[in-house]
Amino acid sequence: MSKIHVGIIVGSLRKDSFSKKVAQVVASFLPDNYEATFVDISNLPMFNQDFDDEGTTPKEWIDFREEIKNLDTYIFVTPEYNRSIPPVLKNALDVASRPYGQNVWTGKPGAVISVSPGITAGFGANHHLRQTLSFLNVYTMQQPEAYLSNIIESLDNEGNLTKEHTLEYLKSITAAYVDWVSKFQK
Amino acid sequence: MSKIHVGIIVGSLRKDSFSKKVAQVVASFLPDNYEATFVDISNLPMFNQDFDDEGTTPKEWIDFREEIKNLDTYIFVTPEYNRSIPPVLKNALDVASRPYGQNVWTGKPGAVISVSPGITAGFGANHHLRQTLSFLNVYTMQQPEAYLSNIIESLDNEGNLTKEHTLEYLKSITAAYVDWVSKFQK
Amino acid sequence: MSKIHVGIIVGSLRKDSFSKKVAQVVASFLPDNYEATFVDISNLPMFNQDFDDEGTTPKEWIDFREEIKNLDTYIFVTPEYNRSIPPVLKNALDVASRPYGQNVWTGKPGAVISVSPGITAGFGANHHLRQTLSFLNVYTMQQPEAYLSNIIESLDNEGNLTKEHTLEYLKSITAAYVDWVSKFQK
Amino acid sequence: MSKIHVGIIVGSLRKDSFSKKVAQVVASFLPDNYEATFVDISNLPMFNQDFDDEGTTPKEWIDFREEIKNLDTYIFVTPEYNRSIPPVLKNALDVASRPYGQNVWTGKPGAVISVSPGITAGFGANHHLRQTLSFLNVYTMQQPEAYLSNIIESLDNEGNLTKEHTLEYLKSITAAYVDWVSKFQK
Repeated sequence: MSKIHVGIIVGSLRKDSFSKKVAQVVASFLPDNYEATFVDISNLPMFNQDFDDEGTTPKEWIDFREEIKNLDTYIFVTPEYNRSIPPVLKNALDVASRPYGQNVWTGKPGAVISVSPGITAGFGANHHLRQTLSFLNVYTMQQPEAYLSNIIESLDNEGNLTKEHTLEYLKSITAAYVDWVSKFQK
Repeated sequence: MSKIHVGIIVGSLRKDSFSKKVAQVVASFLPDNYEATFVDISNLPMFNQDFDDEGTTPKEWIDFREEIKNLDTYIFVTPEYNRSIPPVLKNALDVASRPYGQNVWTGKPGAVISVSPGITAGFGANHHLRQTLSFLNVYTMQQPEAYLSNIIESLDNEGNLTKEHTLEYLKSITAAYVDWVSKFQK
Repeated sequence: MSKIHVGIIVGSLRKDSFSKKVAQVVASFLPDNYEATFVDISNLPMFNQDFDDEGTTPKEWIDFREEIKNLDTYIFVTPEYNRSIPPVLKNALDVASRPYGQNVWTGKPGAVISVSPGITAGFGANHHLRQTLSFLNVYTMQQPEAYLSNIIESLDNEGNLTKEHTLEYLKSITAAYVDWVSKFQK
Repeated sequence: MSKIHVGIIVGSLRKDSFSKKVAQVVASFLPDNYEATFVDISNLPMFNQDFDDEGTTPKEWIDFREEIKNLDTYIFVTPEYNRSIPPVLKNALDVASRPYGQNVWTGKPGAVISVSPGITAGFGANHHLRQTLSFLNVYTMQQPEAYLSNIIESLDNEGNLTKEHTLEYLKSITAAYVDWVSKFQK
C-alpha cells in the first residue's frame, strides 16, 4: 500500500512556536501509512505577481510549488495574528496558488488547527484560513474545527506539550482527519 | 490649521498595480489640509516574534512603526488574494501592531477600498481587513464600503484610470472619508 | 440504483425570488438518479431553545428535522441580506441543528450558490453560510463557489431565467456539484 | 442636558438567556444621562420583501422601525448560533434596514458584546454581526471587542451574574462604550 504524503504547514516562524509543538504531536499520532513532512515556508520571498510575469520567479517559489504539488494532503497548524492569518502562512498559500490557473493546492483534502495562548482559540485565523482554502479548492475537514485555547496550560515546565487532556484532544482530531482523508482515496 | 497626515497603504507590490492607480486618484481628491504619504511596505522582513524578543528588531520595522505612529489616519487600498488579504499588507499590519501592547495603529480613523479585475470586488479582502482593523482599534469608515469591481474597464489604453464614472465614485468615497475623519477631530 | 435525495433550500421568501428561479434551473439540470425536493422553510417558528427544553417543540420543527434527516445532500441558493445570511435561512439551519447533540445536517455533502441583483454576488452570504456549514459538518463543495451577480440581466421580459451564458454557468455548477456528491458515495 | 437614548438588543429569546443577564448588568453601569430601553425583537414576523412591496407591512415592523429610528445608539448582546448570528437578531437588523433606502440604523454609534457558555466566546457571532453593521452604517466600537466565554462560571447558584471579575470586565466595556459614544456627540 502506497504512502500518503501529508505536508504539515505551521503558521509561525517563532523558534518556540506553540503551533509547531501542536503540529509535532499531531504528526506523532498519524498512522504508519502516512509520511509527514514539515514544509518550510520561512524562506519564500513575499508574493509579487511581477516575478512570474517578468520571468524572474524566485527559485524558492519554484521549489515550493513543486513540493506542494507532490503532496496528497495538508495539515495547517496556525496561530492567529490580529484576528486573521499570519502573513507567512498567507504568503505560502498565495505563492503556490499562482501563476494564474496553476494553483497546486487544488483537489486534495486538508485540515485546519488553530492554536492560541488566550481564549477565542484562534477562531479568526481558523475561519479566514477556511475561506481562502475554499477558493484554493482544498477539501477542508469541517468537524472538528480544532481549536486550542490557553495552550500554555498544556505545556509542562520544560515547554513540552504533555497535558493528557490536550493530547487526547489532538489524538481525536488526528483520527477524524485520517477518516476525512480516507473518504477521498479510491 | 495644522495638516492632517494620512498614510496611504497599497496592498500590492506589482509595478502596475490597479490598487496603486486607485490610491493615486483618491490622493488627488483629498482637500488641501491633507498631507498624503504613500507608505512603503515592500521592504519589511516577514513577521517573526523572535526578532523583538531577542533584541534583533529589524531597522525597517523600527522605522515603519515610527512612521505609522506619526500618522493621523490611514487609507488602505488593496486587491484580494485568494479571498483574503495580501500577505504584504497583512505583514505591515502585524509588524506595527507589535511588540505586545505597543500597537501604533490604535485610535485613529481609517478607510478601506478594495479593488478587483473581476466581480465580487475584493469583498473577501475588504472584510477580512475590517476584522483585523477592529482588533487594531482603527476607527474604520463603515459606509461606503468602497468596492471597485472590473477595474480594467475603468482604464484607458495607456492604463490610466480615466473613466468618468469611476472617478466620480472615488470622489464620493474620498468625500465620505474626509467627513468620517472630521468626526474625530476636536 | 437508488435515488439520491437532494433538498433544495432557498434563502428568500419573496414570491418572485431570484434565488428560487436559479434553484429551479439547477434542479432541472440534475441527473435522473437525483430526486430533488424544494424544502419549505417559510413556516418554522423562530428559534427559541425554551421550546425544546420545555417540551413544547413546534410540530413544524419536528417535521422539518425529520425531513432534513432523510435527505442525502443539500443545495443552498440564497440572496445576501445586509452582507450576511437571510434570517429565514439561518433559522432553518439552527432549528435542524438542535436539540444539542442532534444536528441532522451532519455528515452529508452540499453546495452553496449566492445570487444578487448587484455586484459582489452575495459574497457575504455565501461565506457566512459556509462558516455555519463548517460547524454543522456539511461537506460543502469548495469550487466553484458559485456567485451570480447582476442576476436581473439574466432574466427575460417575463422574468424567466433564459440568458444562455447564465444557464451554461449553472449547468457547470450542477455538474461540479454532482461530481462532488459522488466522492461521498460508496 | 438631554438624555442619550440607547437601545439594548439581545440576540436570544430564551427566558434565562445569558445574554440578557449580561445586558442587564451593562445597563446598570450606564451613566445617569443614558436612558436604556430593552428593545423587544421577539414579535417581528420573518423578513419577506413582499410585505413592503405589496403594502402589507406588518404593524410590528412599522413600530419597530420607528423605535429604532428614535434611538441615539445601540448595544447588541448576543450568543452565537452555529458560528454566526441568531436568526431573531438577524431578522431585527434586516427589518429595520428596509424598505430599500430607508435603513434606520444608519449613522449612530453602537457596541457588540458576544456571550458564550463555551470557549471561543461567540467570536463567530461577534464578527458576522460587525460585518452586517458595517453595511448598516452603525459606527461600531472596535476595542474592546467584548467577548464573554464560559459565562456559566460567572453565575452564582441562583443564576445571577455576580462574579466580581466579570462585573469589572463589563464595567470597563461600558466605560469604553460611553467614551466611544461621546466621540459622536456635538
